[in-house]
Amino acid sequence: MARIAVVAGDGIGPEVVAQARKVLDAVLPDVQATEYDLGAARWHRTGEVLPDSVLAELAGHDAILLGAVGDPTVPPGVLERGLLLKLRFAFDQYVNLRPSRLWPGVAGPLGNVKPGEVDLVVVREGTEGLYAGAGGSLHRDTPAEVATEESLNTRHGVERVIRDAFARAARRERRKVTLVHKTNVLTHAGSLWARTFDAVAAEHPDIDTEYQHVDAAAMFLVTQPQRYDVVVTDNLFGDILTDIAAAVTGGIGLAASGCINPEGAYPSMFEPVHGSAPDIAGQGIADPVAAVLSAALLLEQLGHSESAARVNAAVAAELASRVPGVTLRTEEVGDRLAANAVA
Amino acid sequence: MARIAVVAGDGIGPEVVAQARKVLDAVLPDVQATEYDLGAARWHRTGEVLPDSVLAELAGHDAILLGAVGDPTVPPGVLERGLLLKLRFAFDQYVNLRPSRLWPGVAGPLGNVKPGEVDLVVVREGTEGLYAGAGGSLHRDTPAEVATEESLNTRHGVERVIRDAFARAARRERRKVTLVHKTNVLTHAGSLWARTFDAVAAEHPDIDTEYQHVDAAAMFLVTQPQRYDVVVTDNLFGDILTDIAAAVTGGIGLAASGCINPEGAYPSMFEPVHGSAPDIAGQGIADPVAAVLSAALLLEQLGHSESAARVNAAVAAELASRVPGVTLRTEEVGDRLAANAVA
Ligand SMILES: CC(C)[C@H](C(=O)O)[C@@H](O)C(=O)O
Ligand SMILES: CC(C)[C@H](C(=O)O)[C@@H](O)C(=O)O
Repeated sequence: MARIAVVAGDGIGPEVVAQARKVLDAVLPDVQATEYDLGAARWHRTGEVLPDSVLAELAGHDAILLGAVGDPTVPPGVLERGLLLKLRFAFDQYVNLRPSRLWPGVAGPLGNVKPGEVDLVVVREGTEGLYAGAGGSLHRDTPAEVATEESLNTRHGVERVIRDAFARAARRERRKVTLVHKTNVLTHAGSLWARTFDAVAAEHPDIDTEYQHVDAAAMFLVTQPQRYDVVVTDNLFGDILTDIAAAVTGGIGLAASGCINPEGAYPSMFEPVHGSAPDIAGQGIADPVAAVLSAALLLEQLGHSESAARVNAAVAAELASRVPGVTLRTEEVGDRLAANAVA
Repeated sequence: MARIAVVAGDGIGPEVVAQARKVLDAVLPDVQATEYDLGAARWHRTGEVLPDSVLAELAGHDAILLGAVGDPTVPPGVLERGLLLKLRFAFDQYVNLRPSRLWPGVAGPLGNVKPGEVDLVVVREGTEGLYAGAGGSLHRDTPAEVATEESLNTRHGVERVIRDAFARAARRERRKVTLVHKTNVLTHAGSLWARTFDAVAAEHPDIDTEYQHVDAAAMFLVTQPQRYDVVVTDNLFGDILTDIAAAVTGGIGLAASGCINPEGAYPSMFEPVHGSAPDIAGQGIADPVAAVLSAALLLEQLGHSESAARVNAAVAAELASRVPGVTLRTEEVGDRLAANAVA
């Protein structure tokens, strides 16, 4: 039995999560889902972001499925630090996994890149770097104000995510890992990342490796996304690069992610990369594909690779059959995906 | 008379700088250029990166024209920290200016963006943030290693670059400034940037403003680069975003930049965004357009707006006349641009 905590969240979150659950229920006979009310709506109502008791309950699940949280009236940082990052850090989700494929049938923005040609996965570090929350300010609101943000990087944290990237590359066809950093400017953290990467690479002579500065990688993701297989990078660079990768493969409406604790000591969390999209919420027109692909990552992580493959195949069929310009209905897409995943 | 210090540098640097000088000589009758031998070659020969005496001499010039420095055998950071960033910081070049236009005749990678539609400029902060060099490490090469990088931001530094961005927007047609940061995670620096931006915006009711997180901006630069006019952002975000902007407008072969001290207390520095490209160096096939456009920024900064406009027009004509697939010759392009700029 899979015990899944469901955080539907705000805006289109509940709409797309409902479809992901349909698909999960279709392929896994014994899902036990428990809903948790977290996000902007709860914060507005109660002032609570993530009570300790809820955190403790979430810890008892096999995985978390999250829709999207937030709305424009919540001050920046409240839900990000208090909920999303809190979960990533509390549950030691050090692998932030973001696959990008240019699916057949999807018209990406790049004129010279054909569907099927892009199939990369970014392994973004999830528990360190500039996301550590190690910053502060002095003399706020005066001309003398200074504000700092500190990137914290440990050998422990860097090595484990690089190992994960190599392990994933070893299971893929092209067997290539690209390290992205900015070693020429961030010399201390960059050196730690580069030396650790080289050490792990030495244990994997069968895997191709390359290094790129983050600015170059941002450019090549646009001009030549085909060149990437597995990309490993730090938390902030990964945040930016994965949105570029999503953009060149059809947009965040299709982008899935998993915040993974590979050892399973804590639950991993799966969520579409898109936000709560208040502008289209309630209309039943949000694309649930990103949420459904996130559910496929969840299945994979819980060991149900075959079910995951069936969900991916259903998504492939769905995308291949889409007619440009036709408005999709969230519910109908979910119904089709659930049906196709078990067909 | 314009006293220009020329740092041709390594690889294709001297090849493209020679063309930029041709063009400068053509449009400005009284350029007095002095060459400085800096870069990888000098470092290999003498171990010197930027002697204090050279820094002092450079300070006596009106501007610096730089080709490209570096080669793969120089350890990361040596020339970046010791030369490029040293100059930016020593000469207080706090405006790192990077215009991106999709010139008519240039086939960008984006299928749905037409030449002429993209015309944006990124005003990247140049003297603060993660480029401050405030980092360190402990327990190097042990499992206990930690490495830090600190982003330092001051109201002084943030306000002056934001003011510059608004001043530039006021001189442009669309009069719009987009602030890019990551206020939801980097809450301290992000709040300083956002509050300062709002304060300066309040003084410019005639200028449109918007805010975007860096990950969203990276995505929109790919899906909708047309939406940007002036973008203001911090040092590292600017590094990444300008390479994306370059990629969507035809590549770094066309991307110019200026490291500007707007007050003219110190010389500003102008350089193509591309590197020394050792793979094509010596073949006479490097595209000098980025270097020539950088020279146009130099002209603009020194008050020769009309000459700058003529150089830009020559570049426009050159790019519009290019036939895809025909290998260009660096010298010939330079000759044509110099001739057209005075025609
Ligand atoms: C919402 C925000 C905290 C988050 C991040 O920066 O990691 C988001 O952009 C993402 O990529 O999941
Ligand atoms: C070479 C490097 C120090 C530099 C930077 O990071 O600023 C470069 O990438 C640039 O954009 O000018």
